Amino acid sequence: MKVHSAHRRDLQNLDDVDPLSGMRDLFDMRKDHVFFNGNSLGPPPRSTGSRLQSVVRDQWRIDMNASWWKYEWLNLPRAVGDRIGGIIGAAAGQVVVAESTSVNLFKLLCGAVRAASARSQARTVILTDHDNFPSDLYIADGVARHFRPETTVRRVPTDSIVDHLGDDVAVVLLSHVDYRFGRLLPMREITARAHAAGALVLWDLSHSAGVVPIDADDIGIDLAVGCGYKYLNGGPGAPGYMYVSSRLLTDFEQPVTGWLGHAEPFDFEADYRPDPGIARLTTGCPPLLSLIALDEGVSVTSRADPRDVRAKSIALTEQFIALARTRLARFGVEVTGPTAAAERGSHVSLRYESAPRLAGELASRGFDVEVRPPDLLRFGLAPLYIRYVDVFDCVEAMEQLLDHIA
Amino acid sequence: MKVHSAHRRDLQNLDDVDPLSGMRDLFDMRKDHVFFNGNSLGPPPRSTGSRLQSVVRDQWRIDMNASWWKYEWLNLPRAVGDRIGGIIGAAAGQVVVAESTSVNLFKLLCGAVRAASARSQARTVILTDHDNFPSDLYIADGVARHFRPETTVRRVPTDSIVDHLGDDVAVVLLSHVDYRFGRLLPMREITARAHAAGALVLWDLSHSAGVVPIDADDIGIDLAVGCGYKYLNGGPGAPGYMYVSSRLLTDFEQPVTGWLGHAEPFDFEADYRPDPGIARLTTGCPPLLSLIALDEGVSVTSRADPRDVRAKSIALTEQFIALARTRLARFGVEVTGPTAAAERGSHVSLRYESAPRLAGELASRGFDVEVRPPDLLRFGLAPLYIRYVDVFDCVEAMEQLLDHIA
Repeated sequence: MKVHSAHRRDLQNLDDVDPLSGMRDLFDMRKDHVFFNGNSLGPPPRSTGSRLQSVVRDQWRIDMNASWWKYEWLNLPRAVGDRIGGIIGAAAGQVVVAESTSVNLFKLLCGAVRAASARSQARTVILTDHDNFPSDLYIADGVARHFRPETTVRRVPTDSIVDHLGDDVAVVLLSHVDYRFGRLLPMREITARAHAAGALVLWDLSHSAGVVPIDADDIGIDLAVGCGYKYLNGGPGAPGYMYVSSRLLTDFEQPVTGWLGHAEPFDFEADYRPDPGIARLTTGCPPLLSLIALDEGVSVTSRADPRDVRAKSIALTEQFIALARTRLARFGVEVTGPTAAAERGSHVSLRYESAPRLAGELASRGFDVEVRPPDLLRFGLAPLYIRYVDVFDCVEAMEQLLDHIA
Repeated sequence: MKVHSAHRRDLQNLDDVDPLSGMRDLFDMRKDHVFFNGNSLGPPPRSTGSRLQSVVRDQWRIDMNASWWKYEWLNLPRAVGDRIGGIIGAAAGQVVVAESTSVNLFKLLCGAVRAASARSQARTVILTDHDNFPSDLYIADGVARHFRPETTVRRVPTDSIVDHLGDDVAVVLLSHVDYRFGRLLPMREITARAHAAGALVLWDLSHSAGVVPIDADDIGIDLAVGCGYKYLNGGPGAPGYMYVSSRLLTDFEQPVTGWLGHAEPFDFEADYRPDPGIARLTTGCPPLLSLIALDEGVSVTSRADPRDVRAKSIALTEQFIALARTRLARFGVEVTGPTAAAERGSHVSLRYESAPRLAGELASRGFDVEVRPPDLLRFGLAPLYIRYVDVFDCVEAMEQLLDHIA
């Protein structure tokens, strides 16, 4: 599929044979815009609005509180978790949906630090990438500051992570795909190195799940969190998810011990007793309406073959990079991020000094992209609904705009 | 309004002059059922379903991620918080919506324990009622177990709380209205006693906000949490809310330090720097669709005059108790909970040995009540949509059913 063509017709031909072309119709999208920011918030599946209406009108209204049992709302955090498990290569019972990525990360990091110190008191370091997503860094710092005074956070450059795997490392915290430049880290290799050094590994899958195949169980990762509203199309502020390997689950303790994590939430026992399974990671009632929307997003996303998704993701990013290099370099636009497809997620960032202005002009032409100040334009190339011609049209529009600006 | 009549017509007369009678039409409810379990999950406002549809179709679909700014989604946790502030007597900027009651309680308790120990190292006790809602007890235990090893939780009988206000108490954690028997604690008196003893007070308003007038600022409470899906009618698993008095806010630190609590969430600074205001209590993206439903519920609830609500709540519970005593005592049905209206919230529990069976029979007659095993039937008398005749009809149905059972 290595066609880097200057001709729109060639890209149209790729769309015509795209095995994912039918997926696009499952989303309710404007015809007059192309959203290259679906990696910040994916578009609504067609089914989401009507499902929400139905939940309000036919379930909540009719059966009120009994709906939690009658329509299995109570089980939905685990059921949707299992469906996400299908996307990230996790067998049932290891993924659950709750709160937000950051709250979930807090729970897992606290549990990981505790588990590591039980193995060895000397393991007190959370090792992470200094370019990790800021909220992940803030949460790690919060755990160190508030949770266990002996914990420290060590931020190091991405490429030297494995060099810092000393016997003081409790847990390695990394994003599978970097939020800015789309760099995809070698999960299998890093996990193996961390395990060899006696550390746990916690992966943030927010920018990879749904576009990059993940074999959580096969690789043997320990812990993961991820976001529901990017490539899983779960809607604004969709709850996040947690993965805890069944190897760790029985002894895994998280500190936010609310009733829904109890083994018998409705027995109202005097003391907390964690659920034996993944529900021990939950705390309070899930935000059901948002969870319903996530269920729709995950269900739609699950219908695509992950191999097709990855193949198209690579083809889209390669195409975009080749076109941008060919047609935009003369305006000082620089393609950032990994050059090898194997090291790239599904978004590409361009560096351009007047990035905010260019993004504004692009939006007025119907191409929505995201600006990372001061000079980055981020293009999410979501294979389920971005077409090859969209890539062509967007680069062409940029060329015309830059010609005009220049 | 002290009419305890055996005649349905007298109750119909009360409905006819009820200043809240118009509120009922704002909810989308079945005509063939009366829900006395609205204190577990309030009914949907009529506007909720269509607002959700509109948010999906006209905002999310059209403007995607830009909706967070364009439609002020980002500000909604504070805006809805301020509206809840209006219901609980809190000036703007002290209430914010996030996650669930239990997660919020975790944040506030951690912050309270930290704040108290900064005042005095000797203050290490979370003092609470041993009949408090189990999740509140579990969370307190979780804070003690995981957060600060020197913290202990002291559970004492409700009536002896003020006797345990020693100089080792960091924070008093109480439910304003007891979830089982509807006992309403004297918030002003207990808060004053706790303050005199140098302790902070954290109130759980889940069973009072929306039915009992609360003067958070005037009383001078320190901290509060509450639930969005009971009397605030915010929908299943609606996010909860936190109140932090402006007296404490500047120095208040909570441990789950995610990006949305940052002073500049979108600047992606290297280090966490808490928002100067109430947003420091937030962590990750709010579950927007659930938050929209909460906004609708709170908006509808806010339209009632709190004095009318309290007056009707008292009248409904008095009526219910009088009718139950008169007509059900001979079957061994016992009215539990406070006898004085001033000590009662808006629900009443009856004790009956075959409570589950009676609840089942009542449901088949169109009266939905909640069972607290083994022998309690809980009746939520929500003044916004429960009518006086509903109370009459329900007690009459119970009498007929018990006659048949006996």
